[in-house]
Amino acid sequence: MADTRRVTDTLRRWAPILKVLAVLWLVLAIFMAIPLLVLIVESEPDALAFGLSIAIVLAAATLSWIVTWRIPVSLKPWQMFVLTTLSWVTISSFASLPLVLGAPQLSLTNAVFESVSAITTTGSTILVHIEDLSDGLKLWRGIMQWLGGIGIIVMGIAILPFLKVGGMRLFHTESSDWSDKVMPRTGGIAKATLSIYCGFTLLAAMAYYLGGMSPLDAVVHAMTSLATGGFANSDASFGAYAEQPQLLWMGSLFMLCGALPFVLYIRFLRGSRMALLRDQQVQGLLLLLLLVILALTIWRVSQGTPAFTSLTQVTFNVVSVVTTTGYASDDYSAWGATAYVAFFYLTFVGGCSGSTSGGMKIFRFQVAMLLLRDQLRYLIHASGVFVSRYNNQPLTDDITRGVVAFSFFFFLTVAGLALGLSLLGLDFTTALSGAATAVANVGPGLGETIGPAGNFAPLPDAAKWLLCVGMLMGRLEILTVLVLLTPMFWRQ
Amino acid sequence: MADTRRVTDTLRRWAPILKVLAVLWLVLAIFMAIPLLVLIVESEPDALAFGLSIAIVLAAATLSWIVTWRIPVSLKPWQMFVLTTLSWVTISSFASLPLVLGAPQLSLTNAVFESVSAITTTGSTILVHIEDLSDGLKLWRGIMQWLGGIGIIVMGIAILPFLKVGGMRLFHTESSDWSDKVMPRTGGIAKATLSIYCGFTLLAAMAYYLGGMSPLDAVVHAMTSLATGGFANSDASFGAYAEQPQLLWMGSLFMLCGALPFVLYIRFLRGSRMALLRDQQVQGLLLLLLLVILALTIWRVSQGTPAFTSLTQVTFNVVSVVTTTGYASDDYSAWGATAYVAFFYLTFVGGCSGSTSGGMKIFRFQVAMLLLRDQLRYLIHASGVFVSRYNNQPLTDDITRGVVAFSFFFFLTVAGLALGLSLLGLDFTTALSGAATAVANVGPGLGETIGPAGNFAPLPDAAKWLLCVGMLMGRLEILTVLVLLTPMFWRQ
Repeated sequence: MADTRRVTDTLRRWAPILKVLAVLWLVLAIFMAIPLLVLIVESEPDALAFGLSIAIVLAAATLSWIVTWRIPVSLKPWQMFVLTTLSWVTISSFASLPLVLGAPQLSLTNAVFESVSAITTTGSTILVHIEDLSDGLKLWRGIMQWLGGIGIIVMGIAILPFLKVGGMRLFHTESSDWSDKVMPRTGGIAKATLSIYCGFTLLAAMAYYLGGMSPLDAVVHAMTSLATGGFANSDASFGAYAEQPQLLWMGSLFMLCGALPFVLYIRFLRGSRMALLRDQQVQGLLLLLLLVILALTIWRVSQGTPAFTSLTQVTFNVVSVVTTTGYASDDYSAWGATAYVAFFYLTFVGGCSGSTSGGMKIFRFQVAMLLLRDQLRYLIHASGVFVSRYNNQPLTDDITRGVVAFSFFFFLTVAGLALGLSLLGLDFTTALSGAATAVANVGPGLGETIGPAGNFAPLPDAAKWLLCVGMLMGRLEILTVLVLLTPMFWRQ
Repeated sequence: MADTRRVTDTLRRWAPILKVLAVLWLVLAIFMAIPLLVLIVESEPDALAFGLSIAIVLAAATLSWIVTWRIPVSLKPWQMFVLTTLSWVTISSFASLPLVLGAPQLSLTNAVFESVSAITTTGSTILVHIEDLSDGLKLWRGIMQWLGGIGIIVMGIAILPFLKVGGMRLFHTESSDWSDKVMPRTGGIAKATLSIYCGFTLLAAMAYYLGGMSPLDAVVHAMTSLATGGFANSDASFGAYAEQPQLLWMGSLFMLCGALPFVLYIRFLRGSRMALLRDQQVQGLLLLLLLVILALTIWRVSQGTPAFTSLTQVTFNVVSVVTTTGYASDDYSAWGATAYVAFFYLTFVGGCSGSTSGGMKIFRFQVAMLLLRDQLRYLIHASGVFVSRYNNQPLTDDITRGVVAFSFFFFLTVAGLALGLSLLGLDFTTALSGAATAVANVGPGLGETIGPAGNFAPLPDAAKWLLCVGMLMGRLEILTVLVLLTPMFWRQ
């Protein structure tokens, strides 16, 4: 009797989570149909794998829906934490099915690594001869990143600020503010965000096509640019277009579009023409990009590379790493010691909160800078009290503590992951840059194996699984996962 | 008229600083007389250089004293900041004089690098064939580190907590507490600290001598162990005693003695027998050492090294790096990828506050851990308020902000320094580990050039100057220097 009640209780607590997951899996299955159609039209053998995958995902979704359809969806914070983590983990797993079933040359490890890298929009790849993949698989890699991209925006606007993860409450006030004044319902914001995301993707696809890409390449690169994902359709990544600077410049632009806060686009469209330029996050990102690009271009020119080529290549690769896209148009690790160190640092930065990009996010660096300035002031005028403001909001202790804790956890995660990778025999540079690029969801690391000219395939299987954990933790802003690992979380 | 007044004003503001400096320089000159005596007895040609150096330092001290002798010494915080920084800079410079004048094969850069490395107790060296140096020079290298060591303790107990640098106010309350109860005056604490430092050094010298070292080696190694400095009398560092495990164990013990808070020794001697073991800093350091030594010993044994040799070598080198001493008894960078990464991390840690060691200091990691625990609690129980305690003191926002700001500044300094070193052509590993080892005042870096089996001599001159800045900034807990660079500091 008591046992039955406990089971029913557990079921009631988990059912709403399962219900939302079922909806997400359904969406995934629908999007799997797109490559399936292409493969059927082109009568490629991969079609069977996609068909089977859709069947499996649909079965899981339907089953879950049947079990839970009478249960109302009303989520408490703890359920949001569990749901957020589970949605990324399950979707990554289901998304790997077409690769597991359709590409027998791929091991399970490689298939899962590729799909986790895709869904988290990291963009590290274990595939070689990507040129030779079927159109359907190429498209699927793009779609996975594109779906991951919209997932990140929604998570960054609606979920993480609500859960107060890593100082993101800073964006809670703001979003609740504009949801009251500018828009009647959160549903409206989601719809507007989705429209803008689709609009940008269409624009990018057209631009890439007009710039000289094939229709398929244009569509895939458009999706992976906006998602700041970084999967490309060739082993050379964007290096395949190194002789077409117009494409590199378009790529830089669309990666940047993906890395700006999407709520600002909504405000812009609703008439606030200066919304983007007045935002401190955007200002910080643009300033950083400008300075780094300028410095590295001067460095490249001083080494004898022509000015325009330098500017194009530096801009593209710097924007790619800072926005955590991870395309490479050149082996920038061969640009000399300074570029090497600089790209290592840039791996950590990330774009804006509420965009598709990963990394530590520019606002955390800005908050840290304000904290450091206040500390110097405090040492000089011991009695003064300083409350800094960010985007016109007071930086309460609550927020700075969140930002600081996130930063520490970020470094700890990278450090722990690197130590784990070194235990598997990876050298210092590969372990350190591999851990950083995974947790920051960038894509390429440094060193001969996983550098911008390399590939993650040669790593040992255990290293790939560790990197999967790193990518997912980075994507979930670390704390979302860590709370699940505390006994305190499950006691309540 | 206004001009004269401004000059007198400036003089009055700077005179107390100069007066204290004069006293410190006088002490330096007195200690220079020790190697001079040895050199005269052994009729070495270096004697002239030491004589000349003493004359110069004495002249500077006397002149400063004459200018300022009627001015009372009463220092405001801003003067303390200036004095602290200037004392380390000027003493490092004056201490290099015997090397500049007496070792014509040394460039000015190399001489200054060696003395900055000595006074800051870093222990990186540019000297080769150290075995062939005159006894006087060997002794001088030891004395420089020993003087640096006592300087750090005094700074850590009396000055930095007062200036509230980097969360060290945590130790202000405590020290003012025991100065009221246990001891009548701060002068008493200083005298007790000095006695304990001298006592430990004597003990170490006797132990090393009984363990098999020559009298000179015993004295020099005793001084550089207690100062957690790390200068040795041979190019092989402590590797010269690799076949005498008793010496390695003694070395580990005395480095550890140098890395514990000296105020706790005073309490211990005054009857509080559990003072050391009850201190959270000491507990944290010992626990960390235990875990790391255990893990790395298992790793070494699994690689086929005999158990006792593994334990001895791992203990010695881990203690050496964590206490920021920087002796090496073996090329631990050749122990495999995991050891490589582990030693890189250990470079940052450091010993206890109020000891002779550098680095970020163990208490900052502990405070950060408490902060992270509180953050997880906060995410789970959003409404709760948590005030953690450290060593039975509440962790006020004041202190945590100081700790956090210090950590950020520390990483920024290391990152900036590494970028600067890479601009001079140093590779990724050398630049990153060189910057870390300098700012943490450890000694050896990683990589072929500056690794535990290497030497800093081959680096370009500009890199050596950058590293000097890094060593001094690290020694001064970074913020002490940075406040001097703000316009705000000079406006007040």
